[in-house]
Amino acid sequence: MSEFSVKQIGVIRAEGEDFRIELLPEYVPALKGLAAFGDIQVVWWFSGCDNAAARGVLTVDAPYTKGPAVLGAFATRSPARPNPIALSCAHITYMDEENGVLGLAYIDANDGSPVLDLKPYTPSLDRVETPCMPDWCAHWPGNVETSGDFDWAAEFNF
Amino acid sequence: MSEFSVKQIGVIRAEGEDFRIELLPEYVPALKGLAAFGDIQVVWWFSGCDNAAARGVLTVDAPYTKGPAVLGAFATRSPARPNPIALSCAHITYMDEENGVLGLAYIDANDGSPVLDLKPYTPSLDRVETPCMPDWCAHWPGNVETSGDFDWAAEFNF
Repeated sequence: MSEFSVKQIGVIRAEGEDFRIELLPEYVPALKGLAAFGDIQVVWWFSGCDNAAARGVLTVDAPYTKGPAVLGAFATRSPARPNPIALSCAHITYMDEENGVLGLAYIDANDGSPVLDLKPYTPSLDRVETPCMPDWCAHWPGNVETSGDFDWAAEFNF
Repeated sequence: MSEFSVKQIGVIRAEGEDFRIELLPEYVPALKGLAAFGDIQVVWWFSGCDNAAARGVLTVDAPYTKGPAVLGAFATRSPARPNPIALSCAHITYMDEENGVLGLAYIDANDGSPVLDLKPYTPSLDRVETPCMPDWCAHWPGNVETSGDFDWAAEFNF
């Protein structure tokens, strides 16, 4: 089995309603042109789950109220998984290219989470027109834009 | 700057028109329930770019024929980037849960590429209804389903 090394390129700041990514100074040039896209894919690190117990999780007992009794870790977006890699699509609100700060409408991340990579949200690669969902979550919102208005608390057992 | 360790959980097989993911045996239980989703987010490793030169790339000169003269690495999906983490959305065609093999309609990856994580494609997290693209790529296909019919060769300078 191979192991690879990834390095932190920035940090997520989530302070109340203020969400942003602050890049480490050496990576600021790599932002050039990104703000012309409306949305980004943020690859970040579930640092709270970077331990042997969380990384050993292969199955989860009933994580969703309407879901099956057992789900594999790869069938959930849970932070407890073999590699604690997080993926969040976020809408860009502003770019301060000089200081390497990227404002986001929202990101479901703890303040201080390390960022590993940023990619432009590209519909031809990222946007499924007609996604297929299991019956137990077919009622979830159909897009990121309407997701914030949904009653998520009723869906999770944790 | 922090560094983190990620481990290979499987391998991408791309042989002609046959695309699949073969999980390492110890991770097979983590697939449970995934095949009920139509599509997955595959996080994988650009192993050909896991070297100091490629990981030092911050800007790229005119990667796209209709694009700007310089783009930051984070404004492209290029494999040459600080962390060679790849993200591909792929449609599931079959699941052999006993052997940990997941068939895919297509994935733009070299045969043998290491897989780091699998996540269910979840529209509320992953699907932007009305994405905004820069003018130079606004003509690209609007979804994964129609992407294969597009003349991509006319778009790239590499």
